[in-house]
Amino acid sequence: MADHPEIKALVFDVFGTVVDWRNGVARDVGPFLSRHALAIDPFEFADAWRREYTPAMEEIRSGRRPFVRLDVLHKENLAKAMAAYGIDLSSIPDDELDELNHAWHRLDPWPDSVEGLLRLKRRFMIAPLSNGNIRLMVDMAKRAALPWDAILGAEVVRAYKPSPQVYTDTVEILGLKPAEVCMVAAHNGDLAAARQCGLKTAFVIRPTEHGPAQQSDLHPTQAWDFVASDMNDLATKLGCPT
Amino acid sequence: MADHPEIKALVFDVFGTVVDWRNGVARDVGPFLSRHALAIDPFEFADAWRREYTPAMEEIRSGRRPFVRLDVLHKENLAKAMAAYGIDLSSIPDDELDELNHAWHRLDPWPDSVEGLLRLKRRFMIAPLSNGNIRLMVDMAKRAALPWDAILGAEVVRAYKPSPQVYTDTVEILGLKPAEVCMVAAHNGDLAAARQCGLKTAFVIRPTEHGPAQQSDLHPTQAWDFVASDMNDLATKLGCPT
Repeated sequence: MADHPEIKALVFDVFGTVVDWRNGVARDVGPFLSRHALAIDPFEFADAWRREYTPAMEEIRSGRRPFVRLDVLHKENLAKAMAAYGIDLSSIPDDELDELNHAWHRLDPWPDSVEGLLRLKRRFMIAPLSNGNIRLMVDMAKRAALPWDAILGAEVVRAYKPSPQVYTDTVEILGLKPAEVCMVAAHNGDLAAARQCGLKTAFVIRPTEHGPAQQSDLHPTQAWDFVASDMNDLATKLGCPT
Repeated sequence: MADHPEIKALVFDVFGTVVDWRNGVARDVGPFLSRHALAIDPFEFADAWRREYTPAMEEIRSGRRPFVRLDVLHKENLAKAMAAYGIDLSSIPDDELDELNHAWHRLDPWPDSVEGLLRLKRRFMIAPLSNGNIRLMVDMAKRAALPWDAILGAEVVRAYKPSPQVYTDTVEILGLKPAEVCMVAAHNGDLAAARQCGLKTAFVIRPTEHGPAQQSDLHPTQAWDFVASDMNDLATKLGCPT
């Protein structure tokens, strides 16, 4: 078992890495679509909603728009996804849209996440470094028993990954050197941005994040410091006892 | 047992309310003074160090100085306290000063704090709303098993209590209305500032925070929404089962 005494904190991508957003969102989208007699596949709708995620954040990363939290972007993206399916937004009460928007607060962890995080927490500081806002992360953690030591991420530093500021400001808040912090993610792009800022990197493979036909992020695209099959495997590779 | 369904989140002052800073700081100051053959009472030194706390933050609250985290102010305040005792700062290695400065990361909770917080956490979101920085709060929580749902406070909003911005920005981050958030503190001044911003208020009496001869904050100075003798009593008054 490796030891890695230099690493003091692990920071985690959440959507896809710690929790299964696609099944969780589709689970709440399904009854919503049925209630409104809309014959749309909930998984396709979840994918359409998620496709708006990167462009919406890019407006803020580019400086064209001031920072707003992800709950706001998710609600706007929901409207865009509905419009793409020709759904009349004005026919749906705003409370119902807010309730659906909170599907992102109610995502289930992958089966290994809680046990793996509990093992990692005994040796390291653990915190989300997600683009999700603080309240979203708190609701998710309370529902799913994710044992975070703190909620870090986009809203704390008022910037979205993969902007370098997110990684460097987080390292500074933790009072550590970049190499003392390890970014954990199921996405090569997130790890590449973290490595550029000097952080250690751990790739956790999540081959069904995007469903059974997933094409991306099935393999590491660089020689990351750690590659793990799930969160328990990562705990083992970082020397954390079961 | 009261119910209070309107309250969704409890935010806590920490130094004095959740943890006993005076005994904790004196415990680390004692060996430091002995090592340097300084005949100073560790409790008096802790009090002198703490006396620099409010003036240091006032520089930032007033806008005369940009925000810096409390670890930085504590270190500067340590130098001031040492100077007041005529201690030659240049005679002490900087690593040793940093180590002593981290006494604030190693404070013990009052005997009722952990049990009370665990009860409150089952019903409410709970987070520190302290002037302490994020890393300080994380170190303290990991050592003392404080079960926070998130680390909020000065560093997240980049302002120091009792500036109104600290309370209002925190309410906004929580996605709540002010009356859905209750400030918990052993200090009437903190509660008065929170009430001005529309938050609910809970006074927890800590009659020995400043030692056996404490004169301040022995009684509520306004009719706070809740007055409790300790954190367990607060949990009972907020309707949380044991």
